Amino acid sequence: MFESAEIGHKIDKQTYERELPALREALLDAQYDLISQRRFPVIILIGGVDGAGRSESVGLLNQWMDPRHIETHGMGEPSDEERDRPPMWRFWRVLPPNGRIGVFQGTWYSLPVLGRVYGEIKDAALEKAMDRNLRFERMLVDEGALILKFWFHLSRERQEKRLKALEKDARTRWRVTPRDWKHFQMYDRFVKVTSQALRMTSTAEAPWYIVEGSDERYRALTFGRILLDGLRKRLDAETRPPRVSNAPPPAHGVDNLDLIKALDLGRALGKKDYQEQLEKWQGRLNLLTRDERFAKLSVVCVFEGQDAAGKGGAIRRITGALDARRYQVIPIAAPTEEERAQPYLWRFWRHLPRRGRLTLFDRSWYGRVLVERVEGYCSEYDWLRAYSEINDFETQMVEHDIVLVKFWLQIDPDEQLKRFKERETTGFKRYKITDEDWRNREKWPLYEQAVCDMVDRTSTELAPWTLVPANDKNHARIAILRTLCESIEAGLKRVG
Amino acid sequence: MFESAEIGHKIDKQTYERELPALREALLDAQYDLISQRRFPVIILIGGVDGAGRSESVGLLNQWMDPRHIETHGMGEPSDEERDRPPMWRFWRVLPPNGRIGVFQGTWYSLPVLGRVYGEIKDAALEKAMDRNLRFERMLVDEGALILKFWFHLSRERQEKRLKALEKDARTRWRVTPRDWKHFQMYDRFVKVTSQALRMTSTAEAPWYIVEGSDERYRALTFGRILLDGLRKRLDAETRPPRVSNAPPPAHGVDNLDLIKALDLGRALGKKDYQEQLEKWQGRLNLLTRDERFAKLSVVCVFEGQDAAGKGGAIRRITGALDARRYQVIPIAAPTEEERAQPYLWRFWRHLPRRGRLTLFDRSWYGRVLVERVEGYCSEYDWLRAYSEINDFETQMVEHDIVLVKFWLQIDPDEQLKRFKERETTGFKRYKITDEDWRNREKWPLYEQAVCDMVDRTSTELAPWTLVPANDKNHARIAILRTLCESIEAGLKRVG
Repeated sequence: MFESAEIGHKIDKQTYERELPALREALLDAQYDLISQRRFPVIILIGGVDGAGRSESVGLLNQWMDPRHIETHGMGEPSDEERDRPPMWRFWRVLPPNGRIGVFQGTWYSLPVLGRVYGEIKDAALEKAMDRNLRFERMLVDEGALILKFWFHLSRERQEKRLKALEKDARTRWRVTPRDWKHFQMYDRFVKVTSQALRMTSTAEAPWYIVEGSDERYRALTFGRILLDGLRKRLDAETRPPRVSNAPPPAHGVDNLDLIKALDLGRALGKKDYQEQLEKWQGRLNLLTRDERFAKLSVVCVFEGQDAAGKGGAIRRITGALDARRYQVIPIAAPTEEERAQPYLWRFWRHLPRRGRLTLFDRSWYGRVLVERVEGYCSEYDWLRAYSEINDFETQMVEHDIVLVKFWLQIDPDEQLKRFKERETTGFKRYKITDEDWRNREKWPLYEQAVCDMVDRTSTELAPWTLVPANDKNHARIAILRTLCESIEAGLKRVG
Repeated sequence: MFESAEIGHKIDKQTYERELPALREALLDAQYDLISQRRFPVIILIGGVDGAGRSESVGLLNQWMDPRHIETHGMGEPSDEERDRPPMWRFWRVLPPNGRIGVFQGTWYSLPVLGRVYGEIKDAALEKAMDRNLRFERMLVDEGALILKFWFHLSRERQEKRLKALEKDARTRWRVTPRDWKHFQMYDRFVKVTSQALRMTSTAEAPWYIVEGSDERYRALTFGRILLDGLRKRLDAETRPPRVSNAPPPAHGVDNLDLIKALDLGRALGKKDYQEQLEKWQGRLNLLTRDERFAKLSVVCVFEGQDAAGKGGAIRRITGALDARRYQVIPIAAPTEEERAQPYLWRFWRHLPRRGRLTLFDRSWYGRVLVERVEGYCSEYDWLRAYSEINDFETQMVEHDIVLVKFWLQIDPDEQLKRFKERETTGFKRYKITDEDWRNREKWPLYEQAVCDMVDRTSTELAPWTLVPANDKNHARIAILRTLCESIEAGLKRVG
């Protein structure tokens, strides 16, 4: 894997100076095409052995191209904020939008690879992290990103020489740290682990480029040339290739029964019972969130359901029991311009709560497989792959001690009609009803199919759906409060 | 995940008898289109809980469609033959070719899932196996296969009822085994593990279809309908969607040095030294293969190199030291018709040796990224994805104690010309030189680039390439024998 990067590549000064101006101009042109097309983001990963020229390459990039459109992220130790969320959160929050270049020095490879080098984690954990990286990058590529992964390499001999040379020169001495020498002592182990990591994650769509780092000029020209070739190939492709789906279609019922029809919508709760129960469960919820173990958890609630199914009302019954500093309600409407320039999960990742807090999503990432599918806002390929992308997302939450609770609120068409009419005639509710609501209503069977497929493919042992009969608001609200309390209780037991 | 399959789906007899004839006719039509198009194979996986109708469904399939074009594989415990090879070998050997349907009852999920249910393996091992399955299925889909995965489910209550009903009826009693009741005792655990496995492996291109198994008629119609929809969607798609590659291109050197040019081709060995060394290493090799620990290993050697680089001669120096019952030499030329109807790796998998044996490949799976790439026999997307598919293949070998040794024999253009001319003028060598050899020679730089990319992307810590300067045949043969002996020695230490 590293053979090509140990043969002493070199470029003489004359060649370098002859070739550099044209390369720089071409790179700048490419960057401006990228900006004006705004079709995709460029994600550049910089890794490698100490002293092989990682920082220098990042520096060159910012020198050669317009740095106003480049975001450089030197990711060191995670911050408190970051440690409170699943490990990938810190990368999601700084993904470059379409048209921009994001450079990561310190990447989603760094912590697992170093952990393995230091012997803090086992091979199985490294492999798991690499598989997570593969899925992450595949999703980014499917969403349009161009990913270029660079690995700067030095042979053992050349690394030693280079560290000594840097130390000798007063101007560069500061760059050699005790950590660098410690790593050098572990050179063989480091190379073995990285070679394993690189083998597992070098794919057609996001290959690793291994660059020999000993000769500055060779390194610079190679880096620039790979970058240019990668950019030009994507920029000059007429459009993103159409992702026609080869995938087999979802199953359609052969009888007249499905999950939605199987629900008993007749369940109801009288006013007095409701008041009693409401007090009981709200009290319980409040206590649970003040349990000291709660500081080790966070909670994410997803509310989905037809228009007028009662999502807002149910959410208010929850927030009514909570300290306002602890929770956030995120209403999801059409994405903003900033959000449209990012992978569709981006706007949900950004709102994941810190430990000890709750986020309630009023509609959610499931829009991808509901409204976007039914209305044709995304391609079949896009919503079909979303099921496993969503399962990945949720798995990362649950593995990070997020209690994830997902509610689908179900009403029947008659009940919806009644509520729509009420909204139209009640002054203070009128803002809640739009033409779109009436249009969606006509697509009832399509939405029903989409909901059943969604539950079939995303109700997992880690993150099950709770289907809530919601014709009776009292019944629905208590069912939701109870499920939430029980889920938090189970979560407290797990971390306590 | 199983919610939809626990709500008591049912089809009445009248509906069933009304719908069945049309379904059967449509299925048969689809099968004949599949046969006449011969564009892709259909791979059907049948899994699920005991008593949920797995065997019955396989039976129906063979009843409804033309069984002469269906291959049914009830995979139980692996045979001796199978245990001697990597776990996926038994599936590779029976993959259906284009135009045919392969039905697997007992699949690449069965052993890892049961292993986890019984507590014989840990979560990490299950996840690793599922990731292997994902990569396997993705490769099959990229090669054109239609994969339909069925999971027949019963709720706990219904499974108990069903097992009791089967036992009560004298005609079906034989179908309920003590193993079935043992599994029933473990129902909850079984469902938990399978739900985990299904979540991880339900993808857009190969989703799991979960079918409720309690009502025979519902189960049959649903199974048939999913099969039909899946077949028709692929059959009616004009052609396989073009896999335009979005992937960044391989790096091209910016200096005039590469791995091939960095080789010292001047190394040579005099006749006397050669004879001595040959005897020494052949003797060593012979002893190594008679070591008792050798029964736990097998050996795969790959020989690649330019035309006339001396692959055949080197191979003969190895086989000269071996017991003829222990080894096989597989010369790789253009694929046969049978091989063309399979994924490109199929014809290599079939030749993997049993434990205690050696297979020498004279050219190999690397044809995909050498001749097929250079001559345009496959698309860019195909050869770009091949690097990681090959790494997967080789990882499976090495993890199964196969000693894998890969040689690239390098000569320079002058030496090749000399050998070509010799072949033309020496009567008994004339069969070795064809017009194609002369044509390939003109593409020397393209092949050189392909070789460097190949080594960069497939020389891994598990399966490194050995680059052999081969202008001097004596030197090359000894270098190869020595590397092979040292690799086997290391292998013996690992298993001993």
